[in-house]
Amino acid sequence: MTRKSLDDYNCSIARTLDIVGDQWSILIIRDAFLGIETFSDFHKRIGVARNILTNRLLKLVQHNILSKKHISAKRARYTLTQKGRELLPTLIAIMQWGDKWIFGAGEEPVRVVDRETRSPIQQVGIVSRSGKFLSPEDLLFERSPG
Amino acid sequence: MTRKSLDDYNCSIARTLDIVGDQWSILIIRDAFLGIETFSDFHKRIGVARNILTNRLLKLVQHNILSKKHISAKRARYTLTQKGRELLPTLIAIMQWGDKWIFGAGEEPVRVVDRETRSPIQQVGIVSRSGKFLSPEDLLFERSPG
Repeated sequence: MTRKSLDDYNCSIARTLDIVGDQWSILIIRDAFLGIETFSDFHKRIGVARNILTNRLLKLVQHNILSKKHISAKRARYTLTQKGRELLPTLIAIMQWGDKWIFGAGEEPVRVVDRETRSPIQQVGIVSRSGKFLSPEDLLFERSPG
Repeated sequence: MTRKSLDDYNCSIARTLDIVGDQWSILIIRDAFLGIETFSDFHKRIGVARNILTNRLLKLVQHNILSKKHISAKRARYTLTQKGRELLPTLIAIMQWGDKWIFGAGEEPVRVVDRETRSPIQQVGIVSRSGKFLSPEDLLFERSPG
């Protein structure tokens, strides 16, 4: 991806999208959260061409989102690093948006629940320091002093 | 995007990515949150080719994420619908991940603050019904009965 706007080089959203901002990478990360670890299992589930899958896995390993461990000469296991695991709020936010706006209330294909209580998790939202839910109008975007 | 896996057709993440899962769309939505409204302003800020920008704006309007209002024969204003506005947690989650993992603590280019108190917002996270922050291991993904 090439961009002309200087701004984007100093934007966490644009820079993050350079790493994980394609559909295949997000689906790979989704499946890694579900316990998928091998090339052949990613390939079976996602149905992406092998060369693209190879490329995306390599990129995710290079950026330390997945860690790759060989389990034999030909096979490797890919698991999420801490950096990769911290993409979970992003994935859940995407999922909850699709639940509501594509599938509709009560029609979501997958429910995410707290393992301990089996209760559904809350909507991922923007919360103030004092715990208040904020809407776009409540926010200010300030350039950092740095 | 074509997929072989049937699973993906029943996945809110995959279906959402079909609509907004490319870098340009997310950057357009980011700028819409910052108040950008016209083709020429999106074009200036994002630096994407005009035909791609035209295509992405059309898609976002078709999916009712942006609403388009003509302000003259040749000019239109694009603003976020409620459906579009509810992508904010996704964008903030992406941003906070980049702040931490690309720029590093204290080096984030933009601070998001509560307009009223000027305090930074909290990290977007996965929260249980009782208000506890949850990690990936705390979650279960269950097929909905439907």
